[in-house]
Amino acid sequence: MTEPLPQGSTVGILGGGQLGRMLAMAAARLGYKAHIYEPGAAPAADVAAARTMAAYDNTDALRAFAASCDVVTFEFENIPASALDHLARDAALYPDRRALEVSQDRLAEKTFLTDLGLRTAPFAPVGTAADLPDALAVTGTPAILKTRRFGYDGKGQARIATPDQAEEAVAILNGAPAIVEGFVAFSREISVIAARGLDGSIAAYDPGENVHQDGILATTTVPAAIPSSLKTDAILIASRILNALEYTGVLGVELFVTPQGLVVNEIAPRVHNSGHWTQAGCAVDQFEQHIRAITGWPLGDGARHANVVMENLIGDQIDEGLRLAAQPGTQIHLYGKAETRPGRKMGHVNRVTGPA
Amino acid sequence: MTEPLPQGSTVGILGGGQLGRMLAMAAARLGYKAHIYEPGAAPAADVAAARTMAAYDNTDALRAFAASCDVVTFEFENIPASALDHLARDAALYPDRRALEVSQDRLAEKTFLTDLGLRTAPFAPVGTAADLPDALAVTGTPAILKTRRFGYDGKGQARIATPDQAEEAVAILNGAPAIVEGFVAFSREISVIAARGLDGSIAAYDPGENVHQDGILATTTVPAAIPSSLKTDAILIASRILNALEYTGVLGVELFVTPQGLVVNEIAPRVHNSGHWTQAGCAVDQFEQHIRAITGWPLGDGARHANVVMENLIGDQIDEGLRLAAQPGTQIHLYGKAETRPGRKMGHVNRVTGPA
Repeated sequence: MTEPLPQGSTVGILGGGQLGRMLAMAAARLGYKAHIYEPGAAPAADVAAARTMAAYDNTDALRAFAASCDVVTFEFENIPASALDHLARDAALYPDRRALEVSQDRLAEKTFLTDLGLRTAPFAPVGTAADLPDALAVTGTPAILKTRRFGYDGKGQARIATPDQAEEAVAILNGAPAIVEGFVAFSREISVIAARGLDGSIAAYDPGENVHQDGILATTTVPAAIPSSLKTDAILIASRILNALEYTGVLGVELFVTPQGLVVNEIAPRVHNSGHWTQAGCAVDQFEQHIRAITGWPLGDGARHANVVMENLIGDQIDEGLRLAAQPGTQIHLYGKAETRPGRKMGHVNRVTGPA
Repeated sequence: MTEPLPQGSTVGILGGGQLGRMLAMAAARLGYKAHIYEPGAAPAADVAAARTMAAYDNTDALRAFAASCDVVTFEFENIPASALDHLARDAALYPDRRALEVSQDRLAEKTFLTDLGLRTAPFAPVGTAADLPDALAVTGTPAILKTRRFGYDGKGQARIATPDQAEEAVAILNGAPAIVEGFVAFSREISVIAARGLDGSIAAYDPGENVHQDGILATTTVPAAIPSSLKTDAILIASRILNALEYTGVLGVELFVTPQGLVVNEIAPRVHNSGHWTQAGCAVDQFEQHIRAITGWPLGDGARHANVVMENLIGDQIDEGLRLAAQPGTQIHLYGKAETRPGRKMGHVNRVTGPA
C-alpha cells in the first residue's frame, strides 16, 4: 500500500457545481484542502479553501491552478482537451486524459465499449446529412441523433421518429459531428458506481434503479428490483471498463435491463447523480471514494447497509424540500445555487427506507 | 411549520475547530453559507464561505460578524459572556444565553439538573481552601476538585484520594471558584444526543456507549449494551433538559449507568464528540440536525439504521487512519489540523458493523 497524499495537500477540482461541492467536502473529510476552478458562479467555492475564477482556455490561470494543487480532478467530462494538456503538465490528473477522451465523444465511447465486447444500442456516425440514410439503416427508427461531443441531460439531441424527419434533425447540429443511436427496448434503467484505486483495486456499489423525467434523472432506488445475477453482471461490466482504461477514481455506468441482458447506455468518468444515495446508504459515499482513489487511500468497500431512495429536486421542486425533510429518515442536500431555474438541479434528498 | 431561513443565508459559527468544520459542511448541505469566527488557526475556515480572525473580546469584530450572519451558533461552550452580549444584539443566537450560562458553570449545571429532579454525582461548591472539609463531607472521598468554569477534556481538575490531599489540590485552582464532585460507582458511560427545534419539537438519537482514555473520549458504540428501559430513560432525561432550557439546537448529555438508574454526568450545549457516529448510522447526522434546528427546518427523526463504532484518532493515532480506512465499512473524518499534538483530536473513524 502506498502512502496517501499528506494531510493538508490540495485537491484541485475543475468545475464548481454541486458535484464539485460534494467532492470538496469529501476532500475536507480526508484532511485535504480543495481548490475550485470555475469560470462562473461556483457553489462549490463556498466549501473550498481556494477558488480560481477563470475561463477553461486561460492558459496562465490553468497552469497557476495546477501548480497550486497536488492532484487535479473534475466534476464533469466536457473539459476542453487543451485545458487538460496545460493541467497535466503541472499536476497529477485523475481520471486521466484517456478516460476523458473516451467519454467526451459518443462515437469513441460506443466504439470503446463494443471493442470491449460489451453491448450498446446500435449506432452509426453521422458526419453530414448525406450519411444519415445509411446510419438509419444500421440503427432503424425511431432513433436519436446526438452531437458526438458536449451533450448533457438531453441537450444537443433530436429524436428521429421516421426517416423523413432526418433532414430537419440534422439541421439542429449546425454541422457538428454526430452519432445516431437506435432505441433499446428495456424494462429498467440501472446504474453502477464503481471506483478503481491508484493500486488497481476496484470497489463497486450496489446498482441503483433510475427513473428519468424529461431526460433528467428524477429518482434512484436501491436495491434495484433486478435479479442478483444482473447485479453481478453490472459490477463486472464496470470493472471491465475501469481496468481497460486503467482508470483512477469513481466512474458511473448507466445500463439498460433488457430480456437479452444488460446494455451499456453511457459512462461518466466522474461521480454521478445516480450515486448520491451512497451518502445515506454506505459508510463510504461516492465522493469520499473518489477522493480516496485519487489521493492514494485504500478504497472503501462499498457495502450498503440501508435501502435508500434518492430524489432530485429540479427547479422549483426545491420548494418541496421542506415537506420532504420532515419525513422519516430523510437527509437533505441543497446546492446553494443562487438562482432557481427550470430543469436546474437544485438539490436532492436521500430517504432511508430501512436497513439493508 | 414556520419557513426556514432562505437559501443562501449565513450561519455564523463561533469556533473554528472540528465541530465548527463539520457544522459548516452541514450548513452547506442545507444551502447555507458558513462564517467562522475564531481567534486562531481554524480548520473550519477551509470549508466556510467566510472567516473572521479576531479575539473573543474584540467588540467591533464580534458585532461586524453578527451583522453579517442570519443566525449565530457555537462549537464550544466556553465563550465569554461579554462576547455573547455583543452577538445577541445583532443576530439570533442558538442555543441561547441561558443554555450557555448553565453549562459554563459546573455549579450552575449541577444545581439546574438537581432542581429538575435529575440525579447527579454528589457535589458541593468550593470558594476557598477553607470550604473543602465541609465539601468533602458532602461528597466523600475519593472526589474530584474542578474549576467551576472553562474545563474541557479533563483539564483544570484534580483528584482528591484522601482528605489530606485537599490543600495541594486547591493550590492548582489559583483561586478560581471550584466545585468538588464525589465519585459515582457506574458500570457504563453512555450519552444521548438530542435536539429541540425552533417549534419546540424534540428528536433524540439512540444512546451511545462511551469509553474514555486519559480523560478523553476514545470510542462510542451504538447500540449501547443497556436495557431498552434505560434507553428510554436517557431520552426522557435529555428531553426534560431541552424543555426546561427552552433550548434550540443539539445538546449532548453524558450519563452514568448505575444500579440505581441513570446519573447525569454533564451536559454540553452543542454537537458532541459522542454523536459523531450519527454520520454513519443515521440519515440525518447531529450536524445537520443542529443546523436544521437553528435555521427553522423540521428536525430529522434520529432513527438509526446501522450499528456503528466511532473511534477517535488522538495525537499520532492519526497515523492509524490509513490502516483503519482499509477496513470494511469504515468512514474516515480527518480535521485538517496543521499540527499533530499529544492529546489533540485529529480525526475519527466511523465503522459500520452491520445494519441496525
